[in-house]
Amino acid sequence: MAKQPADGRYRVVIEQVSPEVDCGRFAIKRVVGETVTVEAAVFADGHDHIACRVLYWQGREECRSSPMKPLVNDRWRGEFTVNNVGQYQYTVEGWIDRFLTWRSALEKKIAAGHDVAVDLLIGIELIEGAATRAAGGDAALLRGWVDRLLQGKNKPSGAKLALDEELFRAMQRYPERNLATRYEKNLTVIVDRQKAEFSTWYEVFPRSCSPEAGRHGTFRDCEAWLPYIASMGFDVVYLPPIHPIGRAFRKGKNNWEVTQQNDVGSPWAIGSTEGGHQSIHPELGDLEDFRRFISQAAGHGLEVALDIAFQCSPDHPYARQHPEWFRKRPDGTIQYAENPPKKYQDIYPLDFESAQWQTLWKELRSVFQFWIDQGVRIFRVDNPHTKPFSFWEWVISDLKEQYPDVLFLSEAFTRPHAMYRLAKLGFTESYTYFAWRNTKQELTDYFSELTQTEVREYFRPNLWPNTPDILTEFLQVGGRQAFMVRLILAATLGASYGIYGPAFELCENAPLRPGSEEYLNSEKYELKHRDLHMAGTLKDLISRVNHIRKENLALQSNRNLRFHQTDNTELICYSKASDDLSNVIVVVVNLDCINTQMGWVQLDLASIGLDADHAFQVHDLLSDARYRWQGSRNFVKLEPGSLPAHILRVRRRIRSERDFDYYE
Amino acid sequence: MAKQPADGRYRVVIEQVSPEVDCGRFAIKRVVGETVTVEAAVFADGHDHIACRVLYWQGREECRSSPMKPLVNDRWRGEFTVNNVGQYQYTVEGWIDRFLTWRSALEKKIAAGHDVAVDLLIGIELIEGAATRAAGGDAALLRGWVDRLLQGKNKPSGAKLALDEELFRAMQRYPERNLATRYEKNLTVIVDRQKAEFSTWYEVFPRSCSPEAGRHGTFRDCEAWLPYIASMGFDVVYLPPIHPIGRAFRKGKNNWEVTQQNDVGSPWAIGSTEGGHQSIHPELGDLEDFRRFISQAAGHGLEVALDIAFQCSPDHPYARQHPEWFRKRPDGTIQYAENPPKKYQDIYPLDFESAQWQTLWKELRSVFQFWIDQGVRIFRVDNPHTKPFSFWEWVISDLKEQYPDVLFLSEAFTRPHAMYRLAKLGFTESYTYFAWRNTKQELTDYFSELTQTEVREYFRPNLWPNTPDILTEFLQVGGRQAFMVRLILAATLGASYGIYGPAFELCENAPLRPGSEEYLNSEKYELKHRDLHMAGTLKDLISRVNHIRKENLALQSNRNLRFHQTDNTELICYSKASDDLSNVIVVVVNLDCINTQMGWVQLDLASIGLDADHAFQVHDLLSDARYRWQGSRNFVKLEPGSLPAHILRVRRRIRSERDFDYYE
Repeated sequence: MAKQPADGRYRVVIEQVSPEVDCGRFAIKRVVGETVTVEAAVFADGHDHIACRVLYWQGREECRSSPMKPLVNDRWRGEFTVNNVGQYQYTVEGWIDRFLTWRSALEKKIAAGHDVAVDLLIGIELIEGAATRAAGGDAALLRGWVDRLLQGKNKPSGAKLALDEELFRAMQRYPERNLATRYEKNLTVIVDRQKAEFSTWYEVFPRSCSPEAGRHGTFRDCEAWLPYIASMGFDVVYLPPIHPIGRAFRKGKNNWEVTQQNDVGSPWAIGSTEGGHQSIHPELGDLEDFRRFISQAAGHGLEVALDIAFQCSPDHPYARQHPEWFRKRPDGTIQYAENPPKKYQDIYPLDFESAQWQTLWKELRSVFQFWIDQGVRIFRVDNPHTKPFSFWEWVISDLKEQYPDVLFLSEAFTRPHAMYRLAKLGFTESYTYFAWRNTKQELTDYFSELTQTEVREYFRPNLWPNTPDILTEFLQVGGRQAFMVRLILAATLGASYGIYGPAFELCENAPLRPGSEEYLNSEKYELKHRDLHMAGTLKDLISRVNHIRKENLALQSNRNLRFHQTDNTELICYSKASDDLSNVIVVVVNLDCINTQMGWVQLDLASIGLDADHAFQVHDLLSDARYRWQGSRNFVKLEPGSLPAHILRVRRRIRSERDFDYYE
Repeated sequence: MAKQPADGRYRVVIEQVSPEVDCGRFAIKRVVGETVTVEAAVFADGHDHIACRVLYWQGREECRSSPMKPLVNDRWRGEFTVNNVGQYQYTVEGWIDRFLTWRSALEKKIAAGHDVAVDLLIGIELIEGAATRAAGGDAALLRGWVDRLLQGKNKPSGAKLALDEELFRAMQRYPERNLATRYEKNLTVIVDRQKAEFSTWYEVFPRSCSPEAGRHGTFRDCEAWLPYIASMGFDVVYLPPIHPIGRAFRKGKNNWEVTQQNDVGSPWAIGSTEGGHQSIHPELGDLEDFRRFISQAAGHGLEVALDIAFQCSPDHPYARQHPEWFRKRPDGTIQYAENPPKKYQDIYPLDFESAQWQTLWKELRSVFQFWIDQGVRIFRVDNPHTKPFSFWEWVISDLKEQYPDVLFLSEAFTRPHAMYRLAKLGFTESYTYFAWRNTKQELTDYFSELTQTEVREYFRPNLWPNTPDILTEFLQVGGRQAFMVRLILAATLGASYGIYGPAFELCENAPLRPGSEEYLNSEKYELKHRDLHMAGTLKDLISRVNHIRKENLALQSNRNLRFHQTDNTELICYSKASDDLSNVIVVVVNLDCINTQMGWVQLDLASIGLDADHAFQVHDLLSDARYRWQGSRNFVKLEPGSLPAHILRVRRRIRSERDFDYYE
């Protein structure tokens, strides 16, 4: 026998609820103060009117609701705002709107001159029902209506009384929901603090912060850099792993297999006799120095992000204390990392297929816990796609349950499904393919996918023009101009972006060899000593761009990106706007690092709240120049050697006086 | 604490499985012999190779499997064929392919000249593991390989031996699946007999089948029509309700509210003192006559479809015996049907919100059961969208559990979400918006939606150019030519279609009044007497078209429809092809009923298995003319007054001899 429902009288159907990621298996993401717009197809059999609402609640608090309004074709939309960090649940509820159904029919019957005496009795029953549900003065109000309708029911005017607007509004407040259908799933929103969406990262190797060439830098040395980093407008300072570095198979300069006496090794070869993932490399300082660094950074408006790389040097204490967490080869040795034919004998990967996976998971969670206890609230996770997805899902949700303000950046430089899966299962934000999207078409396609499809519900991009592992061909070939182009793209296409400095602002672009994306004399394997104030540094441009980001709400969100056509393939144009369109930024970038490019941009005026009839001003926040534009087609010319882009704030004309226009 | 999985070592992830309707809430549909092609994104952390397969099973039978092959970007595809009526389940399973991972690494290491002695030992362990899982001779075969590799492991040739193809194939037969991930849902296919997809319906009122004008026709009279109906190539004869017709508020001719003495009433006003939904209108005959009619129809290759309309005349026995199944008004009367300001006092709708809904559901199920017991296997359900969706879901699945060969056609002339919902929840096939899709753009958009989107997984269209309720403006205005156009469109765009006859083949097209889709002197309210062999009847065209449908596999499925461009908006061109492309039909229709239209069709040759280099023949199965075509662009001219369409069978050239081409 097929199963009957517990009650077959529920007539409303709810389907196609959005946003909903993978059938509700995963949460959507928002930051505090953002809105969740919920849509659904809601309908019933027959011709009755229906009504529906969004239900939402946080934790064990009481359920709140927000009414949904009809769109076309049985679709409804409602919304709610998330004001607290943590998790919210939401769902949709729909019911037959009996009073509206009755009222609409009555209206037609009165117009057709029918006898509606019995209809009025039906309406009175509905009002009596609502009166029993009503609170405060409404109960009396509705009972008053019952009396009035009973008195007037045999007069022609009595029927019209039943169509009264005040009565209708009162009835809408107390619908009969005893057979309301609730959507079968509770969906989840993870709400993060604003930095999850809008942040500006600076990656720095503290060991290269020494004022003296050749001496290993310390946290104290790095403290001296904080004013410099803060002055450029960054708000996150991200440190590569700060743990003791292994000695076994240590890599030399430029990743050579032979080391010199004074080679410092890679910070990602974690663990030595001096400790593992919960220890600090002694040459950087001690735990107290680190805590002091965090507090000094905070004084400059900078949060410290730590790199978490779950892999071990052969010298890591785990290798001795927990050989069961590693894969053993038939000859009794521990399996080192490989990408055949390449061998990485300085790295032991953890074996997540170990029978002791539970103790391993617990230990790895304790690594995060340890650094949280030191005051760290942002983690950049190295290569998460080489550890099981189920581990990340558990460890992130377990940590965020206790510390909902902690953020996790996924370094998922892997194929799209895996990159997106990591975002779905809990990573707050993610590295992207931005570094390799260079042409107008590539940028348009990729950022449309990230911001205009379902991906935006769970994936927050964090754009990096360079990293210690990635010196793109574009930067190698295009020189300083290329660094400016990529900086402006990163900072305006993404609400979050970061640079690996000072390599970036100093425009370091020598590759290890032609065709390689590795830096020559990479900082991953040696100390660096740089002149932060050398000629040609981009620090002033970076400061200005980051200042523009802070001043303009439009640049602090990813959901509002829109591309506009240009008639030149080297000119890309896009806009970002605040939800209320009060802050609109139009960006035009010359992607050609060598030649002057000019052409017409074709603005989608409606999308940025403008019309063709009124002139407006575009105020270039980079150069401070102002241009009078009107209509969708406007001319742009950008010359290399000067700024490669306009970051234009749209200013509407507010009045004209004596042939002079004033703009907001 | 966030929940840990029972076992954290499952590394493969399976997502985006298709086909999957509404997160697996509903089944997909197939007919016997069809294939289910399953796709999924399957991937794991890290760089290991993976493998996956489709699992499928029917009822309690053992699970079978079919391997999946990789597409691009971590997507995999597999398929299975459904050979039995009923339900199948399917899902996807994926695992780390340890041997392939090992083998690929070994290959690279050998090429790089590494010492692979320890690697060989690892491989030998894998082979030993497979040997314990192997059946029959394979166990010995694999053990033989273990011995061979052990002997050769220190020789250079020993390593290469491990790359042997035979060994690889044997290992692929016994993968280690102890940590295989199974997709979290079991998905369902409902498999129907072929008629669910491919059927040709003829709707006839038996009461109009009398050979004498003015006498009420009977099942016996209707038997005499069976050869006529069968000769036109139909395989379903569909009867409007055959139950006793109510007297109270009986509607007169043309739906008048006053009746004459001899008015026969509407067959949809069901129930009188003579019985209800399980009785036969005495003027048609008795139950024995009906059973005889079914068997006579079968003798002509015709199945009988019954109309099930769950509504009652005020005279229906239910109204007395089960007043609890109706809504009572405050004045004690039963609520009649309304569409304010219209009243339908001859109809009492059933109240599905009745507290006694369970006894009502049971009774309604028994109506289907009764007619199934008489031998009926096809039901056309009247206005299902005015009864609760949950009722249909239960009653259809409950009946199909016992009678999987029963088919249900949904008369869901309502908004799209409700129409599709009824299909999802179990209706075998559905009426469509075809009757109101007239232009090339409308037809292309609508049939692309039905056949090229997810809709095709659960919604089987049944196309009706007319019904007793629908005489479209196109038919009213376009005359006989319009009937030909709509017949050919219905019969070739849809694998299932039907006509309401003889109104259709006799091209009856007088509306009740201008702007109405009701027939003048509609058969719904009076007896008709017609000359089936009058001049101008389309019966020969219908016979030919239905013959073409029977002869050409391409026209028996909906999934293979593809539109081709033409340079004339009045010429629509589309093709259908069998899966193996051995049967390809190209249809070109002149949608203009008045003017000659000509133009170039632009065939998508690849989609129909042709190339631009070889001429082919198109054989018009309507006119028997043959044309030599080559390349994608070919000229067509269609004149009203003759046939409004080509139904072209593509015939490939098989040889040329003495300047003469032979085609298949």
